[in-house]
Amino acid sequence: MRPTAKLHLGNYFSVLKNWVKLQEDNECYFCVVDWHALTSDYADTSLIRYYTREITIDYLSCGLDPEKSVIFLQSQVKEHAELFLLLGMLATVGRLERVPTYKEVRAEIKDKDLSTFGFLGYPVLMAADILMYKADAVPVGKDQEYHIEFTREIARKFNALYGNVLAVPRALFAPIAKVPGIDGRKMSKSYGNAIFLSDTFDEVRKKIMPMVTDTNRKRRTDPGDPDKCPIWLYHLLFNDDEESRNMIANGCRKAKIGCVDCKKILLQKIKEKMEPIWEKRAKLEQDQNYILDVLKTGSQKARETARKTMESVNEAVRIGLR
Amino acid sequence: MRPTAKLHLGNYFSVLKNWVKLQEDNECYFCVVDWHALTSDYADTSLIRYYTREITIDYLSCGLDPEKSVIFLQSQVKEHAELFLLLGMLATVGRLERVPTYKEVRAEIKDKDLSTFGFLGYPVLMAADILMYKADAVPVGKDQEYHIEFTREIARKFNALYGNVLAVPRALFAPIAKVPGIDGRKMSKSYGNAIFLSDTFDEVRKKIMPMVTDTNRKRRTDPGDPDKCPIWLYHLLFNDDEESRNMIANGCRKAKIGCVDCKKILLQKIKEKMEPIWEKRAKLEQDQNYILDVLKTGSQKARETARKTMESVNEAVRIGLR
Repeated sequence: MRPTAKLHLGNYFSVLKNWVKLQEDNECYFCVVDWHALTSDYADTSLIRYYTREITIDYLSCGLDPEKSVIFLQSQVKEHAELFLLLGMLATVGRLERVPTYKEVRAEIKDKDLSTFGFLGYPVLMAADILMYKADAVPVGKDQEYHIEFTREIARKFNALYGNVLAVPRALFAPIAKVPGIDGRKMSKSYGNAIFLSDTFDEVRKKIMPMVTDTNRKRRTDPGDPDKCPIWLYHLLFNDDEESRNMIANGCRKAKIGCVDCKKILLQKIKEKMEPIWEKRAKLEQDQNYILDVLKTGSQKARETARKTMESVNEAVRIGLR
Repeated sequence: MRPTAKLHLGNYFSVLKNWVKLQEDNECYFCVVDWHALTSDYADTSLIRYYTREITIDYLSCGLDPEKSVIFLQSQVKEHAELFLLLGMLATVGRLERVPTYKEVRAEIKDKDLSTFGFLGYPVLMAADILMYKADAVPVGKDQEYHIEFTREIARKFNALYGNVLAVPRALFAPIAKVPGIDGRKMSKSYGNAIFLSDTFDEVRKKIMPMVTDTNRKRRTDPGDPDKCPIWLYHLLFNDDEESRNMIANGCRKAKIGCVDCKKILLQKIKEKMEPIWEKRAKLEQDQNYILDVLKTGSQKARETARKTMESVNEAVRIGLR
């Protein structure tokens, strides 16, 4: 994850939750990619270190475990820059310009300078992040599918030129989670509609209570349609109690329950589910040195693997002292 | 220098000779830039290590002294890749495409794939090589003027954004040396007209003797014009004996001396000047481990400086564990 914002429920349900599960049966590397933060905003770097710590707190409070996984900071493993440089020799400019997100994001974001070599090279750096650990699978959101395809391409090109050194990874998508923002659109920090993992219960309440529900249900006595209501989608994520869910869905359809009541039940369910995360977060926030230590130790571990990879990469490219 | 060929007399008189002088009164860093070799030919890397050693032998036999200067191998100082990555965030693609050599070389060299991100980023990597050592001056050939200008630009941009960390270097041109190749054009390995520092006397003789002199001097009895003769330019480089030079120039103009005689005198002068270099080379060639050791030790020294630079760079960009 890029340290450009705190993580929100969309990140949690579509990616992070899956990561926490994956670490039980897999050797996992989870990285905070601070160099990537520069690709889209080199001009204002004032918050990168802050978000680096915040995202690490998000990781840990949601259950990523530094005893089970390698949790590290990209800029602390210089080998990523080295592999980025080498892979950049194989990537054509034309191919990079055709990466769908390249033109899209440039068209979308007007207030940042995205005309840079660094932004153009974003997929190359991402490929280096992945290939460094000979990952066989990369647990990403669907929006990253094309980047994984690019990574596979460049790994194959490398192997064809220099010998079979890099693992060609596959994308590993989590079951799709529909997480609407508080305005009903997809939750995204750039839309300003996110509920953050670091929001307090009070903040969550203030975001949930005024949310627009099924727009056809204008009065308390009108029947509603859960399928047209973002609150219902939250119930599907937070409310595991089938009986309660049935009561709500039926109550909504028959106007037996009002939106305020429905939201209050939801808030209770959110509280139950999030409480352990919030509590863990509160503790971690008090111990910033521990957070830095986790990243430091993780980065050392990552570096050991990275060094081995770069040894075989450099040997394959036939570069270096020999 | 890029390890893509052995060095020739053109390299010696226009750059290397000046370096040997500079190291007497300056703290100098001399690098073999093996990563740069990949920018123009990633597909065939079979000779990079060989040329890395050969160029180091060229450096040492001509008088670069590992006791006085830091002589090192780029790929052994990973920090160059790190600074390359960071500076790439500031360089715009448009600016890189307008680097004069970019389009020129792409138009000129058709048998290599120069459409890569790596080749486009060549000037950024060169800027990293220079700025890493806070160089105040860069002793280069005139053809590198634009690259130094690019380096200055990016250093200024970095300093304006993040604080005054990088030194803005100036180009340091040696007195211009006119070194023709054996076909009379500029000496260049790509023209196939070079006399290499590693050529034996016999090889030099075989290259010099058939050389075309003043084309107007068709017969031994025709008067010649030294100013139209590449052999005369060689006399200016190798023959320090003014009396001998005057005798040759006048003898040529008055047809008192033939071209074969003139070439024989030149060969004698070349032998005198090059003998110490050839002898040193012969010894160094026998001790490849020593060559690798020089680069290893030099790279360690370079890395110490590089680490300090990157510490202040990362602190300025506000990236890393803090």
